[in-house]
Amino acid sequence: MPVYKAPLEDIRFVLNEVIDAPALAALPGYADATADGVDTILDAAAQVCEEVLFPLNQPGDAEGCTFDNGAVKTPAGFKDAYQIFREGGWSGLSCNPEFGGQGLPVLLNCVIDELVSSANMSFGMYPGLSHGAYNAIEKHATDELKKIYLPKLVDGTWTGTMCLTEPQCGTDLGLIRTKAEAGADGSWKITGTKIFISAGEHDLSENIIHLVLARLPDAPAGIKGMSLFVVPKFMPADMSRNAVACGSIEHKMGIKASATCVINFDNATGWLVGKPHKGMSAMFTMMNEARLAVGLQGLGLAEVAYQNAVVYAKERLQMRSLTGVKFPEKPADPIIVHPDVRRNLLTMRALTEGCRALAFWVGREIDIETKHPDEKVRADASDFVALMIPIIKSFLTDASFEVTNLAVQIYGGHGYIREHGVEQYVRDARITQIYEGANGIQALDLVGRKMAEDYGRLMRQFFHPVADFLATEKDIAEKEGGALAEFLPYFMSAFGKLQMSTLTVATRGFGNPDEAGAAASDYLKLFAYVAVGFMWLKMAKAAAEKLAVANDRAPFYEAKLKTARFYFGRIMPQVNALNLAILSGAKPLMDFPAESF
Amino acid sequence: MPVYKAPLEDIRFVLNEVIDAPALAALPGYADATADGVDTILDAAAQVCEEVLFPLNQPGDAEGCTFDNGAVKTPAGFKDAYQIFREGGWSGLSCNPEFGGQGLPVLLNCVIDELVSSANMSFGMYPGLSHGAYNAIEKHATDELKKIYLPKLVDGTWTGTMCLTEPQCGTDLGLIRTKAEAGADGSWKITGTKIFISAGEHDLSENIIHLVLARLPDAPAGIKGMSLFVVPKFMPADMSRNAVACGSIEHKMGIKASATCVINFDNATGWLVGKPHKGMSAMFTMMNEARLAVGLQGLGLAEVAYQNAVVYAKERLQMRSLTGVKFPEKPADPIIVHPDVRRNLLTMRALTEGCRALAFWVGREIDIETKHPDEKVRADASDFVALMIPIIKSFLTDASFEVTNLAVQIYGGHGYIREHGVEQYVRDARITQIYEGANGIQALDLVGRKMAEDYGRLMRQFFHPVADFLATEKDIAEKEGGALAEFLPYFMSAFGKLQMSTLTVATRGFGNPDEAGAAASDYLKLFAYVAVGFMWLKMAKAAAEKLAVANDRAPFYEAKLKTARFYFGRIMPQVNALNLAILSGAKPLMDFPAESF
Repeated sequence: MPVYKAPLEDIRFVLNEVIDAPALAALPGYADATADGVDTILDAAAQVCEEVLFPLNQPGDAEGCTFDNGAVKTPAGFKDAYQIFREGGWSGLSCNPEFGGQGLPVLLNCVIDELVSSANMSFGMYPGLSHGAYNAIEKHATDELKKIYLPKLVDGTWTGTMCLTEPQCGTDLGLIRTKAEAGADGSWKITGTKIFISAGEHDLSENIIHLVLARLPDAPAGIKGMSLFVVPKFMPADMSRNAVACGSIEHKMGIKASATCVINFDNATGWLVGKPHKGMSAMFTMMNEARLAVGLQGLGLAEVAYQNAVVYAKERLQMRSLTGVKFPEKPADPIIVHPDVRRNLLTMRALTEGCRALAFWVGREIDIETKHPDEKVRADASDFVALMIPIIKSFLTDASFEVTNLAVQIYGGHGYIREHGVEQYVRDARITQIYEGANGIQALDLVGRKMAEDYGRLMRQFFHPVADFLATEKDIAEKEGGALAEFLPYFMSAFGKLQMSTLTVATRGFGNPDEAGAAASDYLKLFAYVAVGFMWLKMAKAAAEKLAVANDRAPFYEAKLKTARFYFGRIMPQVNALNLAILSGAKPLMDFPAESF
Repeated sequence: MPVYKAPLEDIRFVLNEVIDAPALAALPGYADATADGVDTILDAAAQVCEEVLFPLNQPGDAEGCTFDNGAVKTPAGFKDAYQIFREGGWSGLSCNPEFGGQGLPVLLNCVIDELVSSANMSFGMYPGLSHGAYNAIEKHATDELKKIYLPKLVDGTWTGTMCLTEPQCGTDLGLIRTKAEAGADGSWKITGTKIFISAGEHDLSENIIHLVLARLPDAPAGIKGMSLFVVPKFMPADMSRNAVACGSIEHKMGIKASATCVINFDNATGWLVGKPHKGMSAMFTMMNEARLAVGLQGLGLAEVAYQNAVVYAKERLQMRSLTGVKFPEKPADPIIVHPDVRRNLLTMRALTEGCRALAFWVGREIDIETKHPDEKVRADASDFVALMIPIIKSFLTDASFEVTNLAVQIYGGHGYIREHGVEQYVRDARITQIYEGANGIQALDLVGRKMAEDYGRLMRQFFHPVADFLATEKDIAEKEGGALAEFLPYFMSAFGKLQMSTLTVATRGFGNPDEAGAAASDYLKLFAYVAVGFMWLKMAKAAAEKLAVANDRAPFYEAKLKTARFYFGRIMPQVNALNLAILSGAKPLMDFPAESF
């Protein structure tokens, strides 16, 4: 049976000592976001995740959701757990107080997303999708619609969905066929079939509010002709049934307790959210948080997989240490003595902790982007977030798949057995690389849109802070040595490769878009390794500063420095391979005749 | 629904034009192994795999094996398919004609292993394990035991198992507790519990023959005290039931149609195979073929995953090509126009074809090792096989996991749905990295045993042929240019890194075994990329030679050259990262306090 304990010590380290989250308390309306205020919330979140959600994760996977004549039953215990979650106010944590939310920072919501995903990713899908629907309505709907829907979404009495994908289109939403025709009273009649709708039908809430992309009769073709509608399962006025029905649920590799539904709209009544034909831009404004949330799902799974691998590696006795017996009183040494097992554990740890710091940094900047009084500061934060989101979504989920698989490998044959619970993390993690924009699409977003924008304006929001940090730290390292002296050469070499390949991709991509496309995935990975490396520099610096003064948590800070050492020595070298792969260009890909595949 | 077609064109290319398999026909007893003889067999094998085994793969995964009161039921259709397979003589293909086998090369068996694994890996476990039991008995048992068991194992009336693992030990077989006590008539009484026994109980055959590692009363402690026994489910003399019972079957991530059993021996009657306490060395002699077979399972899954990804990439319409509309008559372009999709497909193709060539080369050398009249040639082949087996087992299965996952990625959300069939390949592939010696153990075998043996004697069997090949080809490239001229610099740089890191690992490992352990997995991977690169050189050479003369299969050979180009440009750079990771050494791993994990 797997175990899970919320990694609050590391989370607090990142929040308070690496990314200065307490500074958010100075933003208008964030008075509760002091370190103390956040502490209380984190303790409470840890408790609900560890004690309520986590025990349902493995049984939820085994039982799955069941479909019967349009109704979906979630696994045993999910309904009660949802009530506890709802009553705890977790669904409205970062929502607008005007609608009953607690108005706390998005960053805090990010932390909770990690914890919930560790404890029970499938469960987290239900409030997670609601939050997406909340964001869409809050940002784009009329006041009237907001008043009807937001209070219920915020307190979790109702849940929401995002209905985008159709059988013929997932990535290419321009191919959507669902249509909307004008109704009598300013409402619209929606008709079409949506697939892969998470939380599309279930038994947790009193109503389900679908946000639906559809096409008006006079819509321009393609992506510019999408409009967004709110379509409730039950009509808010009288709770009569709308013409929305779940046709079936999918049988999936993982997240089996999350209902993935086919939803049929048959002249269903809906209301326009935002302007006609502007559905895609409405979607885009909520995409950042949604993609960050998927990255955090990956992070959560990585964390819980790591924790279980550590427990197993300390308990499992196999073989003796290569340098001689370490536990003579035992029939064999615990496998944690073996260098290859440690290499796997440290890979898991270095990726997980590094990704956490990066994700929380981005989460923090979302708060700055929305709440900071200075427009220029908001604009810079917005650029930074836009730049980093594809990296977060893609890299955290790829890392999650790597880390969860390493957990299985440490368990050996036992990891392959469902009873032990770690293979579930692999199956659950696998979807995070795909949904909310497949990772290849994230890479195209990075090189095709974010990198190109305004001659690299977004890029500067990462490159400049890094260059500033390096200038200062190089100076310190040269004069005083110090904790970063050993890491800086690794980082600077990698940063140089990022600069080089940025130039390569930009130059070649300008002449031939296929060059950008061919480099995209490797470039995103390279960028991510450098960005995570930057977080390891910052964490190492923070840890060294704490160690320099007397403190009773020395082992924690020493572990940080050792993990940084591992990251730079063992993981950072990936940038060399990626840089060379990027240099090989598009020709070998595009030259291959389609019929020869 | 997935598709599969045996890749006979590529298989014949490797056999006939790359590794000179027809030369095996000159070995004593291999008269049937001419290109023509092999052709007929391959066609027949393709047919049974495509038409009988493949259609049962997905339903077999959905239904799984079921356990009821000691009996195991395989999925619908498996029993009939097994009869067809058995009657086709496939279970005795490379077995000794003295016992009813067809006496064909092991290499041919390797090819069949690939095809069967593509078609239905779970099904292949049943004859696969039988073949392991056959090898153990054929190589180590008395003539009397051979006469009783081998004909039935060869013709498939009976199947076999390998009973090694126990709850407290998988990797560390020295911890085995199953005991054997002398019986009255030269037989032994076996008592103990074995777990993870593939094909341990099922309904396909009339009897199940367990090969069991157990400990005699006077056995030395640990690994040197193991003895090997043959323990039938039904006593051959009168087919009465022996005291062997299946306690349960495991619920696993994948290979659900393969019964993974707990087998209880309760004073069961068995017979010693080989000498007392020499069970491990008996195991070792059959390990090469068993580990190669697991590598081939990985290869088979990679091949079928690639085929399906290609079909999907040509059918699925999403977005337009970055360089302008390619199929204006369609609502969008097929995703195969996108460079990132091509990058994934070519990664899959380059790994799969490269691994196939490498595996078949090793398979060929197993035949040389056993059948060549010249003792020196046999000894060299034996060294080569011993060296390459951990690389094959580990790299082919890691590559398989990568390739099957890329197939899911190309399918996008549809890949995550069980109905489409590709996520099954991921789940099935995952076990190949674990069983038959987890991949980390393979790496230790390579650096700790194979590399160290007799000052690198085994290593020379790879390094010398490569150096010879390079000497000749460099000369040609300098004088005439030629097809390899563009690839040689990539390869030589990588080969140089292999030589460098070999020296690093050998030198450091000599002083401190943890250094070898810390480098092992990365070193194995580096070695594997170079070995597969060597096969790409050989394939490119063969393809270029064919292209130089008029031939009607130019697209096939051109695709080979283009895939080689991709391999060297995009995949080979990995060696740079691995070399640097190896250089970072053991200290960052071993310095980390166990309690800080």
